[in-house]
Amino acid sequence: MKFDVLSLFPEVIESGCNFSIIKRAASQGIISINAINPRDYTLDKHRKTDDTPYGGGAGMLLSCQPYIDAYNSISKNSNTKTIIMSPKGKKYDQNMALKLSELNQLIIICGHYEGFDERIIEITQGEEISIGDFVMTGGEYPALCIIDSITRLIKGVLGDDESAEYDSHSDGLLEYPHYTKPREYMGLSVPEILLSGNHEKIKEWRRLQQFIITKEKRPDLFEKFLNGKIDEYDKKILKKNNLI
Amino acid sequence: MKFDVLSLFPEVIESGCNFSIIKRAASQGIISINAINPRDYTLDKHRKTDDTPYGGGAGMLLSCQPYIDAYNSISKNSNTKTIIMSPKGKKYDQNMALKLSELNQLIIICGHYEGFDERIIEITQGEEISIGDFVMTGGEYPALCIIDSITRLIKGVLGDDESAEYDSHSDGLLEYPHYTKPREYMGLSVPEILLSGNHEKIKEWRRLQQFIITKEKRPDLFEKFLNGKIDEYDKKILKKNNLI
Repeated sequence: MKFDVLSLFPEVIESGCNFSIIKRAASQGIISINAINPRDYTLDKHRKTDDTPYGGGAGMLLSCQPYIDAYNSISKNSNTKTIIMSPKGKKYDQNMALKLSELNQLIIICGHYEGFDERIIEITQGEEISIGDFVMTGGEYPALCIIDSITRLIKGVLGDDESAEYDSHSDGLLEYPHYTKPREYMGLSVPEILLSGNHEKIKEWRRLQQFIITKEKRPDLFEKFLNGKIDEYDKKILKKNNLI
Repeated sequence: MKFDVLSLFPEVIESGCNFSIIKRAASQGIISINAINPRDYTLDKHRKTDDTPYGGGAGMLLSCQPYIDAYNSISKNSNTKTIIMSPKGKKYDQNMALKLSELNQLIIICGHYEGFDERIIEITQGEEISIGDFVMTGGEYPALCIIDSITRLIKGVLGDDESAEYDSHSDGLLEYPHYTKPREYMGLSVPEILLSGNHEKIKEWRRLQQFIITKEKRPDLFEKFLNGKIDEYDKKILKKNNLI
């Protein structure tokens, strides 16, 4: 998978990708990350990449020319998709990450300041994506979130002991609580059941915790889960604990 | 505002905060960012910060001792809050950003690997927060998103021309489309109305675009807006365009 990121702050993308799993996947050649600065493509003699909005209003807007020329400089293939980090985009989630992980090239356009000239969106036909309902200065941090979440899903990136399938949100429920050594820390003990060695009981306890935690913290996700297809194993636990 | 960030990758926080508005706010002394590595606090002779889960399962968990000792090393005050970046947390949004921006110290604990020993959450009483329903390798990128969104809201950070009030999500609606020079680019023209100089009409057109875009892209937000208190100005535009 090749990630091409258009950003006025390419160093944020480069240094942000230089750690942990993304760094390892890049050094193994499974992914590559290429940050492109539209400022390097501006034809303005002052190297400007922004201008004032038509119709008035606060802030500066990113101009078409440097962004489109930078975009056109990227070689693309039949399995390339372009996304635009934008507060007015579709909400990003794990399903979208899964779909995007099947591409072999993802171009990510990061905004900054008040936003893009709308024609950048029209010409690149990029899909506008937002990671959440909060306002940020630019698209760089969201782009890093997206690169990370996609990279984890690419075959060969995670080892067996890091398997993504145990992660939160993979089945729409939140994770059960985890405990590691020591058995007691500052007077707080690990739940007895986890020390029992009874794998069947542990599995059931963990599943029940997922139901309880999701119901409490994210009733929207719990309702979605209940409205989906529930297998017999889950149904038994839910009934036994008066959760359905 | 003082941000203290507990992370096994403090360099990601440090380099990530070294640009744009966060960098400027830090250099002006409005905010300060302090990254603390729990690994510097581990008592383990191999400098380990993680261990295997009780009850079995894949992945490694972050251990209490290094995290709690690192946490205790931070001096706190009466207006300090602790949040924990966690996929099983409450969903972060602009309202939460607004509330957090009123603190004078925010401690952010970043997870990694499979997650935390649950007792880290119990002992710090940190509020678990998630930026979205997708799986990431660690809490570093989400922490950067949160630091950015909060910093923008602190008085004195944004200049008049960067005013946050025009941003998306500030009134629960998505932004109207923006255009800057040139008037025509690759055959695409700026909408005539924005060149008209009629500020009343421009204002109305932009408001209408917000309604149309929000209705199309984020029907959930549009419904929420319609269910709230709508002023006469908005009501007139909505009616005139058959949106209510």
